[in-house]
Amino acid sequence: MKRIYFDNAATTQVDNEVLKAMQPYFSSKYGNASSLHSFGREAKDALEESREKIAKLLKVKTNEIIFTSGGTESNNMALKRIACESKGKHIITSRIEHPSILETCRLLEKKGFKISYLNVNKEGIVSLDELKRAITKDTILVSVMHVNNEIGTIQPIEEIGKICREKGVYFHTDAVQSFGKIKLNLENVDLASFNAHKIYGPKGVGALYVKEGTNIKALLHGGKHEFGLRAGTENIPGIAGFAKAAEIAYRDMEDNDKKIKELRERALDGILQIKDVFLNGSKEKRLSNNINVSFRYIEGESLVLRLDNKGIACSTGSACSTKELKPSHVLLAIGLKHEEAHGSLRISLGKYNTKEEVEYFLKVLPEVVNELRRISPFAK
Amino acid sequence: MKRIYFDNAATTQVDNEVLKAMQPYFSSKYGNASSLHSFGREAKDALEESREKIAKLLKVKTNEIIFTSGGTESNNMALKRIACESKGKHIITSRIEHPSILETCRLLEKKGFKISYLNVNKEGIVSLDELKRAITKDTILVSVMHVNNEIGTIQPIEEIGKICREKGVYFHTDAVQSFGKIKLNLENVDLASFNAHKIYGPKGVGALYVKEGTNIKALLHGGKHEFGLRAGTENIPGIAGFAKAAEIAYRDMEDNDKKIKELRERALDGILQIKDVFLNGSKEKRLSNNINVSFRYIEGESLVLRLDNKGIACSTGSACSTKELKPSHVLLAIGLKHEEAHGSLRISLGKYNTKEEVEYFLKVLPEVVNELRRISPFAK
Repeated sequence: MKRIYFDNAATTQVDNEVLKAMQPYFSSKYGNASSLHSFGREAKDALEESREKIAKLLKVKTNEIIFTSGGTESNNMALKRIACESKGKHIITSRIEHPSILETCRLLEKKGFKISYLNVNKEGIVSLDELKRAITKDTILVSVMHVNNEIGTIQPIEEIGKICREKGVYFHTDAVQSFGKIKLNLENVDLASFNAHKIYGPKGVGALYVKEGTNIKALLHGGKHEFGLRAGTENIPGIAGFAKAAEIAYRDMEDNDKKIKELRERALDGILQIKDVFLNGSKEKRLSNNINVSFRYIEGESLVLRLDNKGIACSTGSACSTKELKPSHVLLAIGLKHEEAHGSLRISLGKYNTKEEVEYFLKVLPEVVNELRRISPFAK
Repeated sequence: MKRIYFDNAATTQVDNEVLKAMQPYFSSKYGNASSLHSFGREAKDALEESREKIAKLLKVKTNEIIFTSGGTESNNMALKRIACESKGKHIITSRIEHPSILETCRLLEKKGFKISYLNVNKEGIVSLDELKRAITKDTILVSVMHVNNEIGTIQPIEEIGKICREKGVYFHTDAVQSFGKIKLNLENVDLASFNAHKIYGPKGVGALYVKEGTNIKALLHGGKHEFGLRAGTENIPGIAGFAKAAEIAYRDMEDNDKKIKELRERALDGILQIKDVFLNGSKEKRLSNNINVSFRYIEGESLVLRLDNKGIACSTGSACSTKELKPSHVLLAIGLKHEEAHGSLRISLGKYNTKEEVEYFLKVLPEVVNELRRISPFAK
């Protein structure tokens, strides 16, 4: 059976061009970037060229890009190490952040930090007024994600950045879902998290943007890699793949966006033909690849499993917490009832998806929904 | 020019079998191991099969293997997170540990922990008596590496483990250099660090062995991956490659050891024919692949660069600190004078090295040494 992958917000297929860019660093240019000899210099060159590529795309300085093992490490580093080096004890974030932000905040709470969790409206957007009111003299950091992983909401990070700049507070944004998909202006951003595997790059590699002059120290200690901010032998194949993936994403950004948006509109129109279903999140301020809908009277998990049975891969809630039975904190934060959150389905499209796949999905979905509703004790 | 790689303690070429084992997880089985659908299950299966393979090789339980981004993260996690969860404030380590241990210890010192640094003898071996005397009621953890990365010394970790067990103190060993090369008995070890790129596996992936019942928490917070001990989307291609590399290393351990030891003996005999050179570390309690010698009157860095010029890749001191001018802390700890440490050369052999390469090296080395001594202001 041909399989259809509609879970590109969880992870993506590695682009062949990316794999090709990685290959030499496994087999022939396999040196350690800290070594003095030619193998080491090749690795170091690849490292610095990759850093330059990414810095250029983001219009930042090369020494502002720190490679990490992924988005989770970047988020952990930003929050924990800004917290550690600052005098204030107050951090502001939103209720709909990724678990790597929220769980890090819980840890910081245990260590005596006060965390304010900004509410979001029905569309998933934080209020700039609430943010302004929340900032106190004790506030050291605001962390608000650029694009939400579950409902695709795009936050007004330029405005948030301006407010933080005016108040003299660091601003971190988790840009894992947005990077390479929409433009990102880091002018008023002090720290930003990225990873490769959401943009057709390899798993296990990411970056933290750290604006020059930001008072932060390493999370992982050891050798003086990454300007002393991240110890550990650099993952050169991964980093070279990450840079190539970023390059391709920026090169093809408009085309991919257009194509994926068309597929998304067609899919969403089709889905909304089904009875008792509604869109979660914003219609306008939404990443092109994201659909998140709730079906009344059925469970998202059953829906995902039955679709999987038909060869279609979607998700319900965030991929990072699928083993938990709690409904998505994001869907609850935008005002859904528990049963509505439980009935959610996320379709996240990617550049390899086709019209045919969307049409097949739209043929299968109503059948599956009807089947599940037939056996549901909640359906009327 | 054909290049000769004698820096296998810094990193290794990825084995073709390993690369083959990784490939499907980039291109076709690219799912996120947390996803419910078939792509997710494939990834999850690869993750758990890899964990089982490594656990089996180490004769430990599968839930005792936590995948990380590498040796540095594993070492950081072991020390920081044992320190955090324990009541005592005293940790014991040795003077010749890897920077990821020593720098983490410096950080813990700043946080109020007392660290005892065990001396080593001329061979680089810690004294069991000194260890016994160092353990107090306040001691929570002993961390001594299995094999030293610079001089290849094998520590008596079974005896150290027994002492720690008797005294009720956790024992961590950094087994990054020994894993897959010599047998490792984890019976009296509570935590052990591993990585893939020293055994012909990919960079950016490693593991921490955590004995069941050990009181430790996550270093990276977020999703509930790795039994709640390590958040972040699992690097499935990397992990599958790591498991394959471990499997091959164990399968070929005796053959590789025999072959590499023969090459090493030939190389060492040849080197010691040169005037004013001596071996650093132990002759007997030494990993088969390691040679570390000091040449009087010349600098290791010049030697490395001139050898590189002839197509031979070696190192001086640890690859992690080559950008620093300080002489190796390991060589100073075994009693070398500064100038002797500066004249050090490390040759670390691997399974892809050949007799011909060793012979070429033995032809070139005396020429290079003589040249450097001719221009040295220190040579007589």
